[in-house]
Amino acid sequence: MVQFITIDDPTDLRVAGYAQVRERDLVGRHGLFMAEGEVVVRMLATSRLCEPVSLLLAQKRVEALSDSLAALAPEVPVYVAGQAVMDALVGFPIHRGILALGRRRATPTACEILAGLGPEALILVLYGIGNHDNMGGLFRNAAAFGADAVLLDADCCDPLYRKAIRVSVGASLITPFARLERDEDLAGLLEAAGVRSVALSPAGQGTLAQLSRAPRMAVLLGSEGPGLPADVLARTRTVAIPMAAGFDSLNVATTAGIVLHHLGFMAEREAG
Amino acid sequence: MVQFITIDDPTDLRVAGYAQVRERDLVGRHGLFMAEGEVVVRMLATSRLCEPVSLLLAQKRVEALSDSLAALAPEVPVYVAGQAVMDALVGFPIHRGILALGRRRATPTACEILAGLGPEALILVLYGIGNHDNMGGLFRNAAAFGADAVLLDADCCDPLYRKAIRVSVGASLITPFARLERDEDLAGLLEAAGVRSVALSPAGQGTLAQLSRAPRMAVLLGSEGPGLPADVLARTRTVAIPMAAGFDSLNVATTAGIVLHHLGFMAEREAG
Repeated sequence: MVQFITIDDPTDLRVAGYAQVRERDLVGRHGLFMAEGEVVVRMLATSRLCEPVSLLLAQKRVEALSDSLAALAPEVPVYVAGQAVMDALVGFPIHRGILALGRRRATPTACEILAGLGPEALILVLYGIGNHDNMGGLFRNAAAFGADAVLLDADCCDPLYRKAIRVSVGASLITPFARLERDEDLAGLLEAAGVRSVALSPAGQGTLAQLSRAPRMAVLLGSEGPGLPADVLARTRTVAIPMAAGFDSLNVATTAGIVLHHLGFMAEREAG
Repeated sequence: MVQFITIDDPTDLRVAGYAQVRERDLVGRHGLFMAEGEVVVRMLATSRLCEPVSLLLAQKRVEALSDSLAALAPEVPVYVAGQAVMDALVGFPIHRGILALGRRRATPTACEILAGLGPEALILVLYGIGNHDNMGGLFRNAAAFGADAVLLDADCCDPLYRKAIRVSVGASLITPFARLERDEDLAGLLEAAGVRSVALSPAGQGTLAQLSRAPRMAVLLGSEGPGLPADVLARTRTVAIPMAAGFDSLNVATTAGIVLHHLGFMAEREAG
């Protein structure tokens, strides 16, 4: 049974985690994150990697959302507020009428994630992705094409930032990820785990079409503009995606989608 | 020689086209469009399809932008304003310090675009794309993979809206496009032009991997959510992009990138 708790006062301390959501986005949530919208909150409720701490619903949306609440663990409090109280609390109008505070069940290291890979595995390794739209799109594509994990260098933004979760359509709640320490030897870790690495670069030695599938593979991507760090490119096999002359510009999330689709296609051909 | 014209008064009628850019985005520009940023304005200056009507530069950026101004036709006026005048005129801070008003040199119909295709051609046909980010991303990918044209149904948003141009990295200024009339028989036009059509759909009859390249091809894409209209799906060959179980969600611009890359890959294999 869902526990509904009515909130009449926007300063009620039980819902302090939802106060002024946009300001809170800037200063951080001490290990918690904010999820918004029905699809994303439903993914949070059923994720093996994250869990909801509480939900906040607009009164008028409770009935329409009842199916999505069915998956919720019974101990998770569901706060319900009228639209005016909710807007005053959150600090802007919440048209979708559903928010959740969540947390990760665990914070694995890159080493732990690599140790848990199956014999066939595909991981994305991201360097310097600072844009939450791109981060969300990267996780969305990772989930769509069944990537097993995402590794982030120390300069990447947070995949559990509110906008990144939204753009990922909840993929960042269900895809294992770890952040590398600044001095962590990723190349060494990948090699020890038997993972073949390939780096995407406009100046790649080969083209993506020539890239075959290895059982365990890591696809390395840098941010648009600077691309991958020179020392990473120097010690990794590189491939390019051929583009039209005069317009050599591809979004990093789109690049990931093309590479992951290609590797799935190659795996299918090799299996078939 | 570039004609620099100093503007000291934000109400100067010569720069009225730049007044309150965001409000103007909402009400339209009567056949003109607004381009922003150095890369995009440079593409406007060299486009075969569009042309700049005028430029507006921040005084402090004139020297840094001189290389980009070299490509500009000498009759195009370049207005120069101090930062305060520029901000007051435009209505928000223009960090990049460069804007341009542009117009299309011509407004071709779908029929005219199809009549001008070469023996090998690839076109995107878009239905109901209402989001300017997605529209920009679609044009960016069309340009990156050398699509020859984009056709838009009557429900698509404007690829020359300021944000769509920016997200396209200028691709919507250099890629031929036409908007279909609401009652125009696109299927008939494509057939008459010898163009083989394929529609992307999660419920596709085949997978993208099975799709081979025809000399003239049209790739049909609908908006996320509703997808392509049922009558379009009913009379077109459909293909799906296989995705992970439980996460069947792909951005429409990413989808276009994957399909265009695949068709380029197939063309390369068939040629090789």
